[in-house]
Amino acid sequence: MNRRQFLHTASLAALAPTIAWGANPAENHPEQLARWLRVAEKLKPKLNETTVTPLKVVKPVADGAQFLRWRMETVAPAAKLGEWLLRDGDGAIIDFGGYVTGHFRFTVTPEGQGVDSPTRIKLTFGEVPAEMAGSFADYKGGLSRAWLQEEVITLDVLPATIQMPRRYAFRYVKMEVLATSPVFSVRLGGLRATALTSAGPNKSPLPGGAPELLRRIDEVSLRTLRNCMQTVFEDGPKRDRRLWIGDVRLQALANYDTFQNYDLVKRCLYLFAGLPREDGFVPACVFEQPKPARGHVYIIDYAALYAALLLDYARAAHDWKTARELWPVARRQMEILSQYVDKNGVFSAPAGSWVFIDWKDGLDRTAAMHGVFVYSLRQAQALAQAVGADREAAEYGKRIAELTAVARAQFLDSTRGVFTSGPQKQVSWATQAWMALAEIASPTEGAAALRAAQNLPDAVRPGGPYLYHYFVAAMLKCGLKTEARELVQSYWGGMVNAGADTFWEVYDPKNPMLSPYGDPMVNSYCHAWSCTPAYLLRSGGLL
Amino acid sequence: MNRRQFLHTASLAALAPTIAWGANPAENHPEQLARWLRVAEKLKPKLNETTVTPLKVVKPVADGAQFLRWRMETVAPAAKLGEWLLRDGDGAIIDFGGYVTGHFRFTVTPEGQGVDSPTRIKLTFGEVPAEMAGSFADYKGGLSRAWLQEEVITLDVLPATIQMPRRYAFRYVKMEVLATSPVFSVRLGGLRATALTSAGPNKSPLPGGAPELLRRIDEVSLRTLRNCMQTVFEDGPKRDRRLWIGDVRLQALANYDTFQNYDLVKRCLYLFAGLPREDGFVPACVFEQPKPARGHVYIIDYAALYAALLLDYARAAHDWKTARELWPVARRQMEILSQYVDKNGVFSAPAGSWVFIDWKDGLDRTAAMHGVFVYSLRQAQALAQAVGADREAAEYGKRIAELTAVARAQFLDSTRGVFTSGPQKQVSWATQAWMALAEIASPTEGAAALRAAQNLPDAVRPGGPYLYHYFVAAMLKCGLKTEARELVQSYWGGMVNAGADTFWEVYDPKNPMLSPYGDPMVNSYCHAWSCTPAYLLRSGGLL
Repeated sequence: MNRRQFLHTASLAALAPTIAWGANPAENHPEQLARWLRVAEKLKPKLNETTVTPLKVVKPVADGAQFLRWRMETVAPAAKLGEWLLRDGDGAIIDFGGYVTGHFRFTVTPEGQGVDSPTRIKLTFGEVPAEMAGSFADYKGGLSRAWLQEEVITLDVLPATIQMPRRYAFRYVKMEVLATSPVFSVRLGGLRATALTSAGPNKSPLPGGAPELLRRIDEVSLRTLRNCMQTVFEDGPKRDRRLWIGDVRLQALANYDTFQNYDLVKRCLYLFAGLPREDGFVPACVFEQPKPARGHVYIIDYAALYAALLLDYARAAHDWKTARELWPVARRQMEILSQYVDKNGVFSAPAGSWVFIDWKDGLDRTAAMHGVFVYSLRQAQALAQAVGADREAAEYGKRIAELTAVARAQFLDSTRGVFTSGPQKQVSWATQAWMALAEIASPTEGAAALRAAQNLPDAVRPGGPYLYHYFVAAMLKCGLKTEARELVQSYWGGMVNAGADTFWEVYDPKNPMLSPYGDPMVNSYCHAWSCTPAYLLRSGGLL
Repeated sequence: MNRRQFLHTASLAALAPTIAWGANPAENHPEQLARWLRVAEKLKPKLNETTVTPLKVVKPVADGAQFLRWRMETVAPAAKLGEWLLRDGDGAIIDFGGYVTGHFRFTVTPEGQGVDSPTRIKLTFGEVPAEMAGSFADYKGGLSRAWLQEEVITLDVLPATIQMPRRYAFRYVKMEVLATSPVFSVRLGGLRATALTSAGPNKSPLPGGAPELLRRIDEVSLRTLRNCMQTVFEDGPKRDRRLWIGDVRLQALANYDTFQNYDLVKRCLYLFAGLPREDGFVPACVFEQPKPARGHVYIIDYAALYAALLLDYARAAHDWKTARELWPVARRQMEILSQYVDKNGVFSAPAGSWVFIDWKDGLDRTAAMHGVFVYSLRQAQALAQAVGADREAAEYGKRIAELTAVARAQFLDSTRGVFTSGPQKQVSWATQAWMALAEIASPTEGAAALRAAQNLPDAVRPGGPYLYHYFVAAMLKCGLKTEARELVQSYWGGMVNAGADTFWEVYDPKNPMLSPYGDPMVNSYCHAWSCTPAYLLRSGGLL
């Protein structure tokens, strides 16, 4: 089941358990939630602005060997643009030389007998060459076509300086003159982007001896993260710009090791805390505008990972005060999720609910979700210990042991040395990763299982970077450092070698046109959950 | 030759005569021109704003019997719109119940699980039903397609109140939701137009006993004029929004009899005076934005009529001070135009110059232009007398006599009782009208010639309202009041009966799809020069 299908179905809100939220009635009190949202509001960062000038005029060239089948060829230096007189049907594609999340402005100057009509100009903003090559009119995706970044503006008076009012995410801007009049042409000039980010400088460069490819991967990771860091950690600045638990958890890890904007993570923790479902379950995502509001979708594994997000933060920022204050939120997720352990002791997400794990059709998520829950109970246990919640710490310890035993009994195929999932005994990378991360597998078992899955041709491979991250993390946990590095070099390095400025939401080397939304035009090409090499290369222990 | 062709050719500026401008060196001094422009600037009116609420939701229905082959059918009262949930492909056409030049605002309210994507909405503003029926993508006209009033906007945050930044000219607004997302729909509400005009109330209603059709024609005339009266007398608020001498002269006449905004005419007189060609020749039109500037086209008959514009104004506003100050401008037009009288005494516009007279292919303009010049010399003579320029008054008198004699010798076909034009001896309504208005024909001759032209099947008929006005004016001058009234009732009444809210730039009852620009979508349907029945029914003597 994929995200798109979920967007068409009823919200998990309909499945809300009926048990009261929190032992302490103050915990879900509206005033408490409002206070948490006020904390989040106070932490809203002022964005850093950087002016970016365009590099060159380019044109897309069809090239089956390239990502999405297009590459860019240089036409002229950007300064040449101002020399061209443009009229109906003329235009140019501008390459800013790097990815920008921010604003765009330009000037339009007329030349001719007189400006005797309005002027109409179309702008198309693109993250990748393919968005510049075709027409968005052919879009066939399931997500809103309003995500496609195009604008048509009509200017009554020339000369004009145009500051486009919306924010865009782009490296390329296609500017097309749709209409002047027969007696005048226009020149486009003064092109400027204002890049926005709440990231500051990277405080921890890679050591000098790091191999070239890994350095390049790190640069792209940092650029990805920087562009996603706005007034929250957005999942993607082009789409969908929201704050998602699963995504922010990974962004936060990369951030602690580099930009170290702790307050932005704290803000995000408080936003989720202040916007729970009526029973205290945290939504998978929140909206910032027009005022903070919870998203309409709930993801079981994302809610579980709130505990990890909080624990990681407290450790990185040395902020145990926030951990104590938000501990009830993490605890509440464990309470709710504990109900889903079935009579056999296996975590069974309610029918109709959304367990993410990975963008991958056909993946049996039972074992992986069981693993995410055990992993999250471990984070919650550490939190409980840190905040002095001894009862919960003990309770989680007991549950971890039970769930581990069940998992080993249910999922471990000792003959093959792998963990399986579901009635078909499906072997997947996802299952092995989460068995290892949850410590259901010992490091030795985990290492064997991870290797085995990689070598089994019919094992279900990852669909995207999110799961690749957890697979690499599991490898590192199990001592497979060389293999982990090889995987990072082949997967993230594959994107870099295919021309990525920023890492993508979806990347399957064997299926470059893959889109979970039915059209790669709407994929995000600067996506939060893909930025983790910056973390893996530092705290992650990959180097 | 039509306006479109001119827009492709070199400006008449290339044909500027070389004689110095004005006997008095101060007259074309840059400081003088700058001062005149400052006078114009000070006279710029503050516009009156009226809020207009929509009347109903309508749909276009193909109907070969209707103007441009479409009529509107009511779908629902406007209030119903807010009850509809709209998503991709949905929309509605709103009828404001009357013509508006001004701004448009509306609200967009989401309904659904959450606003998880931007929303894209297309707006199309139309003066007439046909603009709502098709797609502007099919536009084939020669003028800029940027005139077609359409916008696509993308909203990142809902709910939103949208104040469209541009000014539009419309009765209808088509609102199409191009994209929401699969989980939300939108409601459109709060639709409001803000009508702008520099016209105040009509100070001279028609007498109570005026026939119904004439009353309706008058209403439409006043609505046309009101919508064209902005910070100048625009020729059309949809297109091309400029101040043209030929158009403002007719608007001013209707204005003196009704809204009596004398300062607006004065402003226009000063704009032309302050923006002449280097030799003092006034441009056919001026631009207001970004700062007052002369248009790039020159029209011989329009320049001649500056004298009439100034004289009419001085008489109506009793402002002979302005007449004295701007008299050199009128005089200068006569000086320049006098050079174009050829060795046979016939006015011969230079090759490549533009003589308008009417929108009509195939019209021989020689005699009519000769008539316009004589008519204008008469206005200039009256001005000269009023300001004490006796030398010029006498000179113009002598020239009028000479040109009249030549015209009678060259153009009058005594046998048929008509005036002809050109080597083919073409008989046209235009020629008869201007022979009568110039008093080259006596009232008796003129009456006979006007009637004869109307009855001659192969006489070249008028192409549009501008010439119809002068033809009716000529009839009234020659005592053909009944016939004049019949013509107004059939021509302007024809537009009213075809559903006109405002009078059109172009109307040929026999060719409803007529457009001088190759596509009726770009015709102006609220056009200055069509508003003259309001004048004809008052000072004009039609009642």
